[in-house]
Amino acid sequence: MPVFTAHIPAGEYSAEQKRALADALNRSLVEGLGIPEGDRFIVISEHGEGELHLHPTFMGMQRTSGAMIITVLFGAHGPLDDKRKVTAAMARLVSEALDISSDNIFIALIPVPNENFSFGRGDLQLAEGAPRW
Amino acid sequence: MPVFTAHIPAGEYSAEQKRALADALNRSLVEGLGIPEGDRFIVISEHGEGELHLHPTFMGMQRTSGAMIITVLFGAHGPLDDKRKVTAAMARLVSEALDISSDNIFIALIPVPNENFSFGRGDLQLAEGAPRW
Amino acid sequence: MPVFTAHIPAGEYSAEQKRALADALNRSLVEGLGIPEGDRFIVISEHGEGELHLHPTFMGMQRTSGAMIITVLFGAHGPLDDKRKVTAAMARLVSEALDISSDNIFIALIPVPNENFSFGRGDLQLAEGAPRW
Repeated sequence: MPVFTAHIPAGEYSAEQKRALADALNRSLVEGLGIPEGDRFIVISEHGEGELHLHPTFMGMQRTSGAMIITVLFGAHGPLDDKRKVTAAMARLVSEALDISSDNIFIALIPVPNENFSFGRGDLQLAEGAPRW
Repeated sequence: MPVFTAHIPAGEYSAEQKRALADALNRSLVEGLGIPEGDRFIVISEHGEGELHLHPTFMGMQRTSGAMIITVLFGAHGPLDDKRKVTAAMARLVSEALDISSDNIFIALIPVPNENFSFGRGDLQLAEGAPRW
Repeated sequence: MPVFTAHIPAGEYSAEQKRALADALNRSLVEGLGIPEGDRFIVISEHGEGELHLHPTFMGMQRTSGAMIITVLFGAHGPLDDKRKVTAAMARLVSEALDISSDNIFIALIPVPNENFSFGRGDLQLAEGAPRW
């Protein structure tokens, strides 16, 4: 149930590349954390002129016009090691999929408890049992 | 002060249906939790080709092209029972308003403390007193 | 690393005004909390007819068609006093930059721990050491 939202610059990436981005985000869960492949819930938002701002060099990066901000609704129970695994996998797979430097990928993991997710029908499917994903 | 953001597929819903969606989300607070009707703060974002991905069957649902992801900035003090009430009301009222299956409605409640909301003027109007909403 | 997302009505603000909005949000961190100017990560999203709803008077405000919802991914360690400072600075600087009433500026601070941010390369640059920003 990690849910991704990728904020990308308009006009930089084709529809095909957007699908590749979504695939890369999904695979970062599978490869990084062993989450089932079917757990694929992804939003991509394009932002036009003056609507997406990432500082070009803050924290020692070399960001270009293709830089993006990705937020992830991430299980609040996840330990630091899981966070390291998923952000490392995201940076690697997204940079490969889009042929960009991983300096261009800003990530924030927003903690959300398992019991706060409804996969459909208004039920909270993960409210019972041990934490998952 | 629950704030809704509904990520919907572009071209699936008319302007009138978007207003009906907003009304349904607002009524889910009133009917589900007894929150004042005036507490109506809602964002709808459309996403085009390759920009919105919900797995068609994960967790036993039958999702269609009209499927959507709704996030809610939700009072961090809210007990599990309130979460159940609001997601159940959202699924029922949105599916009625748009004539879609509630399998199509993915929801995540993002916990936000009362003292983190400003309704205007830069003040944190809920920082004092007992938790509300 | 506070990350801003401003949801604004489409057609109300020019590209130049959007840049002024981004500048005002950045300065609210510098002036309100002494955060480095380079910590500038900002998303602006426009929403068309029926896609952005703020109640016109709830909580005693007088909101107009230019009203907006701004969310901030904000260090979870921040005390209440820091929250007051940043929302006050945001309301003042955005209302000055856009020449609108601060009644029009709804803000929610979403708590995110320092260790959940990657500024690039998949590393969690703030995971070690004392909380920052």
